[in-house]
Amino acid sequence: MDVKFTTVKEIYKDREAYIGKTITVGGWVRSIRASKTFGFLVLHDGTFFETLQVVFGEKLSNFADICRFNVGSAVIVTGELVATPDAKQPFEIQAAEVVLEGASTPDYPMQKKRHSVEFMRTIPHLRPRTNLFQATFRVRSLAAYAIHQFFQERGFVYVHTPIITASDAEGAGEMFRATTLDMENVPKNSDGSVDYSQDFFGQSTHLTVSGQLDVEPFAQAFRNVYTFGPTFRAENSNTTRHAAEFWMIEPEISFADLEDDMELAEAMLKYIFRYVLENAPEEMNFFNSFVDKGLLERLNHVMTSDFGRVTYTDAVKMLEEHNDQFSYKVYWGCDLQTEHERYLTEQIFKRPVFVTDYPREIKAFYMKLNPDKKTVAAMDCLVPGIGEIIGGSQREENYDILKARIEELGMDESEYSNYLDIRKYGTTRHAGFGLGFERLVMYLTGVGNIRDVLPYPRTVGNLQ
Amino acid sequence: MDVKFTTVKEIYKDREAYIGKTITVGGWVRSIRASKTFGFLVLHDGTFFETLQVVFGEKLSNFADICRFNVGSAVIVTGELVATPDAKQPFEIQAAEVVLEGASTPDYPMQKKRHSVEFMRTIPHLRPRTNLFQATFRVRSLAAYAIHQFFQERGFVYVHTPIITASDAEGAGEMFRATTLDMENVPKNSDGSVDYSQDFFGQSTHLTVSGQLDVEPFAQAFRNVYTFGPTFRAENSNTTRHAAEFWMIEPEISFADLEDDMELAEAMLKYIFRYVLENAPEEMNFFNSFVDKGLLERLNHVMTSDFGRVTYTDAVKMLEEHNDQFSYKVYWGCDLQTEHERYLTEQIFKRPVFVTDYPREIKAFYMKLNPDKKTVAAMDCLVPGIGEIIGGSQREENYDILKARIEELGMDESEYSNYLDIRKYGTTRHAGFGLGFERLVMYLTGVGNIRDVLPYPRTVGNLQ
Repeated sequence: MDVKFTTVKEIYKDREAYIGKTITVGGWVRSIRASKTFGFLVLHDGTFFETLQVVFGEKLSNFADICRFNVGSAVIVTGELVATPDAKQPFEIQAAEVVLEGASTPDYPMQKKRHSVEFMRTIPHLRPRTNLFQATFRVRSLAAYAIHQFFQERGFVYVHTPIITASDAEGAGEMFRATTLDMENVPKNSDGSVDYSQDFFGQSTHLTVSGQLDVEPFAQAFRNVYTFGPTFRAENSNTTRHAAEFWMIEPEISFADLEDDMELAEAMLKYIFRYVLENAPEEMNFFNSFVDKGLLERLNHVMTSDFGRVTYTDAVKMLEEHNDQFSYKVYWGCDLQTEHERYLTEQIFKRPVFVTDYPREIKAFYMKLNPDKKTVAAMDCLVPGIGEIIGGSQREENYDILKARIEELGMDESEYSNYLDIRKYGTTRHAGFGLGFERLVMYLTGVGNIRDVLPYPRTVGNLQ
Repeated sequence: MDVKFTTVKEIYKDREAYIGKTITVGGWVRSIRASKTFGFLVLHDGTFFETLQVVFGEKLSNFADICRFNVGSAVIVTGELVATPDAKQPFEIQAAEVVLEGASTPDYPMQKKRHSVEFMRTIPHLRPRTNLFQATFRVRSLAAYAIHQFFQERGFVYVHTPIITASDAEGAGEMFRATTLDMENVPKNSDGSVDYSQDFFGQSTHLTVSGQLDVEPFAQAFRNVYTFGPTFRAENSNTTRHAAEFWMIEPEISFADLEDDMELAEAMLKYIFRYVLENAPEEMNFFNSFVDKGLLERLNHVMTSDFGRVTYTDAVKMLEEHNDQFSYKVYWGCDLQTEHERYLTEQIFKRPVFVTDYPREIKAFYMKLNPDKKTVAAMDCLVPGIGEIIGGSQREENYDILKARIEELGMDESEYSNYLDIRKYGTTRHAGFGLGFERLVMYLTGVGNIRDVLPYPRTVGNLQ
């Protein structure tokens, strides 16, 4: 466009460069009030959390029109930026020209009054215009970038593991099928089973639940790698923490053990938190003031703590002493519940803590068996406020042990031939973890429902 | 691990810091040869394209074992790094210790001899260990990061548009269905049609073909946004350029027209090329030497050219003069074929060129109608070597024109209510484009088959 726009962000970041200058800004009207001779228009231009006040007077030829602009209108304003040291906002534009770029209507759903988040979920295309969702989705974007920056600065290779997968091992009932078969008339074999040879890939295919098994081979070529992509669970869970489609980060490191894995996870979390706090201070203050009063204190506490370490066995001993306080009693062999995880990190350790070496029965088949043969080299990272935020492990790199475990669990070995191959051709000790991205964004913002950190949430029975 | 590894990358980047020092490296054996008293082992550690030579002698207690190590073995080597000014490689490690981390076998498929890319596609878990795929997947990772860096530096917000979508507008036959319905026994309505109310989301759902319609509303809140995620086409196209699953980048900018869109596309391409050339010079030299001799010259030419601009109408006039050279004759109203695109950019303009203002009939419904009512404000970016690499447009922001166009094309208006809403509540001029990520990686590397730039390619009838 033949206009040189100044952004609200530029103004806030370097106000001295703009005060006294005539500038042009483009944005959306958040609110407007006018008297007979002048009016105020609060403008948000999308580049920055804060707004810019525009003063317009009766000398403008379209003064009467401006007074009738509806909330939500897009406008282009030219005028002098003036310091207003005695006012609430630090500066304002005295408009020499206000041009309507796109009108809004009186039925614009985002009026100034507060709306419930439930209502907002019905209008995912408009809710990013509110403070809450502006802040959330900007933090989401910055956190995603921080993750890439963290890994790339350390030489990790980003691998796009596939979404459509032939594997349906981790619970077929909880996966989405991807198919081009005619649903009206599904082709069948003579025995009545579905003839997937006619499907797009000539076989039955699903949407991935994790990139780990596909990314591990890349770690045996590039040493350090990570995935960051969407994953899917067709779980019938209608909770504030489950979505059918969510993004996951899965690093995998070679020549590395569980201790290296924990060091990586701790460094990554601290890096992300620091990056977001430095790059979105306005948004983070907003969350701290209006969403979760203890947020900044909690994040700063995580950032400055040395994360604790405790084995599952020792953690269970500690927790058993407080069994009177839990709905589910703790015993060796049980899966830790959120109440236990939070008690550990909040009451006992009072800082983030890694719980390691879980019983093999409650962990995945690929986790490395410890010398005690009873536990595996797994780790969960627990943080105050929510409990588990990261789960990882050293991987079983021993071909015979891994093969035996696959057989023991009655899994279809043919599906894991590539995975086993890696243990045959120059295996290394290696480890990795998974971080649910939405979980992280919820922790960073204090937003309590996963539906409100996803641009277009997909949950059971619901797709906007 | 209780080992302080030095990476091959660190050694190459700052050799003076390591020569004369005793260091430990971990990596995989690319080749090995030994005499009775000493041997050479070429080590690749995954962090860098180049290898490191290890010299080992009979004084090592496990000398005989080392001599029998198979290619592909993982080893940990400790020794002094010594400059070798007269040798082919600039330095080598004189091993004081060589420990076998993970054995390989004589049947390791990646022996030293060259393999066909067709064979490699059957072993996607091992092929990243070869020079070609090392280089390709590292460039892929760096290009992905360059894209994030480009947009984030400019304040763009990264939006994760959904993969599972209710829209099936852009040709239902070419989309994958996502479903949890029982394929053996698909539930039906009384009229015999499929009862999608019983599906996971209570409706019929597919995998997205583009995030554009979902990301546009975010541009009307954040001004400048982008997507970068997987997209899907269930096209029955068995070519070197089609994959069923591929990644796409789709920026969307507000208060912007077609000219802004072209400036953004040009700046982005140049940024990515520069970033990759600076950060992967070894890999890029490899491609230039062994895959595509003119690669570096072509990329440098693109980077240093001002991209041309020509309207479709003028381009057609220019091309018509050379119709004798084309299989498909050019005429106003035709869709340009690759042969025409390449002729334009390679023969006529001799540099990248944007072709703009295409006939509305051959472009998408959402592209902005020009004042001539015959053309739309579309642009295709053509580059020497392949033709179109980017397609974009200014969007129709006028509610009435867009609504009429949707009706004219017989599309289901109810599916576009959110999209139309955006034109009702403070619309702005806005524009965007789509860049197929694999297309870009092919262009950057000279690799001619899309199957060889995807970690695990998904193509019709084929899923490894």
